[in-house]
Amino acid sequence: MTDDRFWPRNFAALPEEYAAYDRARVVILPVPYDSTASGWVGSREGPRAIVDASEMMELYDIGIGSEPYRVGIHTLPELAFHAGGPEAMVDRIEEVVGELLDDGKFVVTLGGEHTVAVGAVRAHAKRTPALSVLAFDAHADLRDSYMGSPYSHACTLRRALESAPVIQVGLRSAEREEHGLIRERGLPFYSPQEFRAAGAESIADQLGDTVYITFDLDALDPSQVAAVGTPEPGGLLWDEVSELLATVASRRRIVGFDVTELAPSLGPRANAQLAAKLTYRIIGLALRE
Amino acid sequence: MTDDRFWPRNFAALPEEYAAYDRARVVILPVPYDSTASGWVGSREGPRAIVDASEMMELYDIGIGSEPYRVGIHTLPELAFHAGGPEAMVDRIEEVVGELLDDGKFVVTLGGEHTVAVGAVRAHAKRTPALSVLAFDAHADLRDSYMGSPYSHACTLRRALESAPVIQVGLRSAEREEHGLIRERGLPFYSPQEFRAAGAESIADQLGDTVYITFDLDALDPSQVAAVGTPEPGGLLWDEVSELLATVASRRRIVGFDVTELAPSLGPRANAQLAAKLTYRIIGLALRE
Amino acid sequence: MTDDRFWPRNFAALPEEYAAYDRARVVILPVPYDSTASGWVGSREGPRAIVDASEMMELYDIGIGSEPYRVGIHTLPELAFHAGGPEAMVDRIEEVVGELLDDGKFVVTLGGEHTVAVGAVRAHAKRTPALSVLAFDAHADLRDSYMGSPYSHACTLRRALESAPVIQVGLRSAEREEHGLIRERGLPFYSPQEFRAAGAESIADQLGDTVYITFDLDALDPSQVAAVGTPEPGGLLWDEVSELLATVASRRRIVGFDVTELAPSLGPRANAQLAAKLTYRIIGLALRE
Amino acid sequence: MTDDRFWPRNFAALPEEYAAYDRARVVILPVPYDSTASGWVGSREGPRAIVDASEMMELYDIGIGSEPYRVGIHTLPELAFHAGGPEAMVDRIEEVVGELLDDGKFVVTLGGEHTVAVGAVRAHAKRTPALSVLAFDAHADLRDSYMGSPYSHACTLRRALESAPVIQVGLRSAEREEHGLIRERGLPFYSPQEFRAAGAESIADQLGDTVYITFDLDALDPSQVAAVGTPEPGGLLWDEVSELLATVASRRRIVGFDVTELAPSLGPRANAQLAAKLTYRIIGLALRE
Amino acid sequence: MTDDRFWPRNFAALPEEYAAYDRARVVILPVPYDSTASGWVGSREGPRAIVDASEMMELYDIGIGSEPYRVGIHTLPELAFHAGGPEAMVDRIEEVVGELLDDGKFVVTLGGEHTVAVGAVRAHAKRTPALSVLAFDAHADLRDSYMGSPYSHACTLRRALESAPVIQVGLRSAEREEHGLIRERGLPFYSPQEFRAAGAESIADQLGDTVYITFDLDALDPSQVAAVGTPEPGGLLWDEVSELLATVASRRRIVGFDVTELAPSLGPRANAQLAAKLTYRIIGLALRE
Amino acid sequence: MTDDRFWPRNFAALPEEYAAYDRARVVILPVPYDSTASGWVGSREGPRAIVDASEMMELYDIGIGSEPYRVGIHTLPELAFHAGGPEAMVDRIEEVVGELLDDGKFVVTLGGEHTVAVGAVRAHAKRTPALSVLAFDAHADLRDSYMGSPYSHACTLRRALESAPVIQVGLRSAEREEHGLIRERGLPFYSPQEFRAAGAESIADQLGDTVYITFDLDALDPSQVAAVGTPEPGGLLWDEVSELLATVASRRRIVGFDVTELAPSLGPRANAQLAAKLTYRIIGLALRE
Repeated sequence: MTDDRFWPRNFAALPEEYAAYDRARVVILPVPYDSTASGWVGSREGPRAIVDASEMMELYDIGIGSEPYRVGIHTLPELAFHAGGPEAMVDRIEEVVGELLDDGKFVVTLGGEHTVAVGAVRAHAKRTPALSVLAFDAHADLRDSYMGSPYSHACTLRRALESAPVIQVGLRSAEREEHGLIRERGLPFYSPQEFRAAGAESIADQLGDTVYITFDLDALDPSQVAAVGTPEPGGLLWDEVSELLATVASRRRIVGFDVTELAPSLGPRANAQLAAKLTYRIIGLALRE
Repeated sequence: MTDDRFWPRNFAALPEEYAAYDRARVVILPVPYDSTASGWVGSREGPRAIVDASEMMELYDIGIGSEPYRVGIHTLPELAFHAGGPEAMVDRIEEVVGELLDDGKFVVTLGGEHTVAVGAVRAHAKRTPALSVLAFDAHADLRDSYMGSPYSHACTLRRALESAPVIQVGLRSAEREEHGLIRERGLPFYSPQEFRAAGAESIADQLGDTVYITFDLDALDPSQVAAVGTPEPGGLLWDEVSELLATVASRRRIVGFDVTELAPSLGPRANAQLAAKLTYRIIGLALRE
Repeated sequence: MTDDRFWPRNFAALPEEYAAYDRARVVILPVPYDSTASGWVGSREGPRAIVDASEMMELYDIGIGSEPYRVGIHTLPELAFHAGGPEAMVDRIEEVVGELLDDGKFVVTLGGEHTVAVGAVRAHAKRTPALSVLAFDAHADLRDSYMGSPYSHACTLRRALESAPVIQVGLRSAEREEHGLIRERGLPFYSPQEFRAAGAESIADQLGDTVYITFDLDALDPSQVAAVGTPEPGGLLWDEVSELLATVASRRRIVGFDVTELAPSLGPRANAQLAAKLTYRIIGLALRE
Repeated sequence: MTDDRFWPRNFAALPEEYAAYDRARVVILPVPYDSTASGWVGSREGPRAIVDASEMMELYDIGIGSEPYRVGIHTLPELAFHAGGPEAMVDRIEEVVGELLDDGKFVVTLGGEHTVAVGAVRAHAKRTPALSVLAFDAHADLRDSYMGSPYSHACTLRRALESAPVIQVGLRSAEREEHGLIRERGLPFYSPQEFRAAGAESIADQLGDTVYITFDLDALDPSQVAAVGTPEPGGLLWDEVSELLATVASRRRIVGFDVTELAPSLGPRANAQLAAKLTYRIIGLALRE
Repeated sequence: MTDDRFWPRNFAALPEEYAAYDRARVVILPVPYDSTASGWVGSREGPRAIVDASEMMELYDIGIGSEPYRVGIHTLPELAFHAGGPEAMVDRIEEVVGELLDDGKFVVTLGGEHTVAVGAVRAHAKRTPALSVLAFDAHADLRDSYMGSPYSHACTLRRALESAPVIQVGLRSAEREEHGLIRERGLPFYSPQEFRAAGAESIADQLGDTVYITFDLDALDPSQVAAVGTPEPGGLLWDEVSELLATVASRRRIVGFDVTELAPSLGPRANAQLAAKLTYRIIGLALRE
Repeated sequence: MTDDRFWPRNFAALPEEYAAYDRARVVILPVPYDSTASGWVGSREGPRAIVDASEMMELYDIGIGSEPYRVGIHTLPELAFHAGGPEAMVDRIEEVVGELLDDGKFVVTLGGEHTVAVGAVRAHAKRTPALSVLAFDAHADLRDSYMGSPYSHACTLRRALESAPVIQVGLRSAEREEHGLIRERGLPFYSPQEFRAAGAESIADQLGDTVYITFDLDALDPSQVAAVGTPEPGGLLWDEVSELLATVASRRRIVGFDVTELAPSLGPRANAQLAAKLTYRIIGLALRE
């Protein structure tokens, strides 16, 4: 009994016609995991807050002039937490994302801490040989191990680098060793100022043909999203990110993405709405007919 | 794809085996409506908070020694809001509850403001000739009209009285006219002190054979549930309510109920957890094998 | 007993000399109404938060070099809520605003949801034949009816258009039908980017001689005001709005305005202070000696 | 223009007929002062929160079967803050309360920190030779000086003792020296357990004929009021306090009182509503016809 | 430079004379760990909130008539988080607690989730052959493994049972299997009602001569402490707990304890103050001269 | 016992090697004082929030390419509050800062309200004959006395002017008299727009050789820091402030500074993190090797 007297509870509040798994091109995978968080905690509540906020979005995205939901978007229940440690959780994510990809879906992973991206990147990289990763992040995330684990959120891009080349945008926090690694290897990691100087097209052109986007919301300025565990002033603005995403989408093929690190209790609710709209925007850009 | 690597998102986080509409004896109807609220607002977020909180309850209710979920509990999506005014909303609720009853379901309505009970009571009363209503409430709710509408939350029990006899427990706030009506008609409305003096069995014995329970959470003391729009000190405690409910269930047949007025942002999250546990408890009591 | 040992409780904390109704050119009308809200709720607490915040503003507005309070500002008590539905509420607002206008006052309506603007626009339009409306809003608000009512907040500008021509600034969310209507009729609705391209003077020049301003605070970027029920990223900044208002005031006659949709519990208190300062600023601009 | 389409903004939301200074027997004096707070801060927002919350109380107090507002209740604007230190503030309070008493009013002082009681007690004691003080408090407040001032909140009852004998109820926190003073002088300071053992009548009988009540809300258990700067577990319950107040009122004459220490941001809003109802209750008891 | 113009930042805000490690009999070990939390998260912020709140306690505990700080209380910095999974964290805790015990200290572990107790119990049990554990908890915590780990918070008492016999008080939530285990083995696990029926002395008499207390704050009623991840209505009250602790202390020797599960952002600050006072009280009872 | 299994609790979470008083070039002096606050209160919690937030900063500041902690940073306990009034508190601050300066330390004062800067400026000015003050502030702070005290936060720069010349940046709120004083004396007080027009170098060049920086965080736009008692829209951005600070540091010698007015409960936690990073940045700039 889910007729139009009811308001559906799924990403974008879609009716069954667009939300059923079988008819949906896109699958939303919520991963409420934050066990390695070293700053403020609470990103486990992020996926739910994003899905809840998405229910009041307009289905027409005036910013790109399309209705992304028409490809169908199925929202999975939340992936269960594994208490045994982050490696077991990353494995579970890789497994589930892999099954979804093998089933022909476009997978959107909602964190949770940035660590969840490791499983998603691996699943995509194994199935897409020449994958490039475009990372939005305030932090280098290049530690080889942190607080006793190579699967800490602080190691996310180091792990991702083992699967695919990574271009990062938003960098403004790193340890000396991480900064050394960036310079030594010439990693294309851009601070907001460097990104503005280079321009969106330059970033897009460095990416391979197929692109996975991993979006740690702390790449954005805290004025845009304060609700993250390790905020850093001096970040990216919504309009800048919108333009970069549109540029990448127009020149490359986006095959999957994640949006992570929203810790709703640490900022105003508007932050969840931004994350929902960002998610919907990237779906629209990636699967534009 | 909803195997055991996922955590179901429905009341009590039940797997499909127990949560599918067809197999479920119980249906949860969330009604996020609070448009006539005259105090603090926000009970529209109550149903979602209760369902969310229910996902971390133990399925075994040690307080009554049973597993209420075994009868099957289906959670509907949220009933859509009607912006035209409270009468249209009450009509919609009555219609939906009626259809569910006609389909053989035991209906649990989650408010939203207490007004939602009017539709639910009407639907039950039309199908259960000798229905009694047991109301938990801090307020008399006996105004004939309030702020321009006979469907204000302040008129809930006045409207209910038009459908069935009402016994109320928890009374500690009323206008002079309401208090006059109670005395004049000899309405069985009990303050917490009067309830303690009378005892649970006395209340149960005044009810007819079939009982509908309407539970405005402000009947409870604010120390138990602060997250209501019009809290009143000096209310009922959890153990008292538990005992009364058990007594009623052992002597009468409970045919439906609602839990209303949780406005989550006005108190600690523990309040939503209490409301979830209360809901689960009444299901267990009403449908005990 | 209200000598200078006390701190007056009214808009701008003015002493009786400037706050008495008879001596005041400006009247603040607080309308704590939010019954048709479809997103997050709480704008009913907006008027109180704005008045409270205004009590700590400096009376000299350094941004425009004047002391707006000198024309006298009277703060009315809050308009009572009508529980019967939004049409009855809109009628009440139109009636009260009309009486104030007929009494020679400059009326400032503080919402509450944007719906309250419909009553205020009607009252002004009936008394000012060639009135133009300048609307600040993130949303088109052009639905003919929404969730069962033509007086939903989502229909505000559609209703306003029935009274006067509307120029809107801040647009970044609309349904396909709304967007179609804008294009079809050539409505002058500007996104933030389009506004920046056009410039403040272009906007001002399209307005008629007398202007009513309806300000839905979600026109601003959430970094400026997060405390709204339906925030949208990519909005206007304070300095941009300040410049547009100053330009309009220097070229046209502002005859009344409203500030709506502040839902204080959804963002930091600084948002209420911005709304108070915005209100004071527009008073200063409209009634500059 | 304040007809019945408006909702008055004063204690109990009274119409002019009952709220005008000249017709009112009772005057509410809000004192938003918290500059000596040594724990968590914010009681300066208490008076406003209490008045705001009072606007949604029923005017009939079913607990005592009367309508306290009928004697008239005028709400003053907030007393201005004196930045020069607590002694200057206490002097200002004493001065204002004195003028109100000399004008024949029954004065209700709303704090702010407990220090504000010193001024109020002094003003009453000077005009009521045999005044007794009944203090509700979790703390002894008997330090002679604290953190450099004899007017710290921690010295309130020590200062009060210089004006009149004090009976205290609710004690459960004191320094060794304070405890020594209580034992040495045999001060009638009762812990909650001691109060329960003694009974309300015993407390009432120790008071003189005319009584001033100073109510630091932390006397109540944090389950009743968590929103205080220095909460202590194990406090009084609403029903106990209600009974003691009724007993005192039936045997003695209450000539004035204060309610202090509500720091609204430290607990749920229900706490402000309790404080409002407590204030209304004491007015009803003190001035029962 | 830490003379009396400064306010020390350690448990109870003690001056160096009482706070230096070498002079202190008691050591506070803060463990901000919550990685296995399955309900609401945030107990990692508990230790800091407790220490912060303790800084405004009176040093004299009027409830037991002593000054517990006189034995000396040293506050360690927070134990670093181990991201590798809960077993590694439990090992670290056991190691550190063991070293402190071997250094002759009385160790107070502040969680963090209840899991931290496993390490502390193990360290004590290895050094105290006939140790009994007195557990305060709302939940059975008897699962052998949960969500993939035997070191989940839901397994705490199952793990503790492997080190020492356990008596539990406060039980009101358990799965069927856990309840079966309790009945099968005849484990002395008491619901609040059973505890009230049995009495404090009966509980104390079942304990061995030396007792370790593990205190999960959710044993208390949510009206006393709402700020826990998995609150359950119908819990223990402060006065009941105080009496039980005093009874145990008067008949047995308390050799160590922990206070866990405070998640400060989930309830009012008063909850942290209760936890601080509880900690100070147990120190006072355990080491009463 | 503070080995690497622990996380130090001091500014930047430094190990003893860098945090011990004797080895540290920099001393952090937390001053939790907010007794003259006339807007929203709570800056007394600012120092603690800043220190807490600093514990999760990266020690390498990628923005300036250095590791500021290497000069050593000692964090003092919080300066005790003086309840006697603001003058006594200012004297205490001047005394302590003076002693630290005489001991060869670089002093960083963390407020608390802006008033605390008066003591710090005096101590520096007495020891640095040709000191210039660079003030960041939204308000003129030029009142000679406010609400009964010349040591109100609203008089801070007036008092500072008595010790040294002041250049202010961020001005956008002032009373008519203050604005008059600025124009009359030609004080170099810059609004954000004026600052942008003048450029960072122009500001730096007007300063003397040795500079003290007093940073009222409300100079920043509320989108950057909402958690202040008297926020004003239209303020400075992080990147602008960063550039100005770098320019000043490269041309002048910074001898001390304060960061004040963070009231953590009034905005998201990200605001404390910004304040921590700002503090660390200025240390890095001032003491760059």
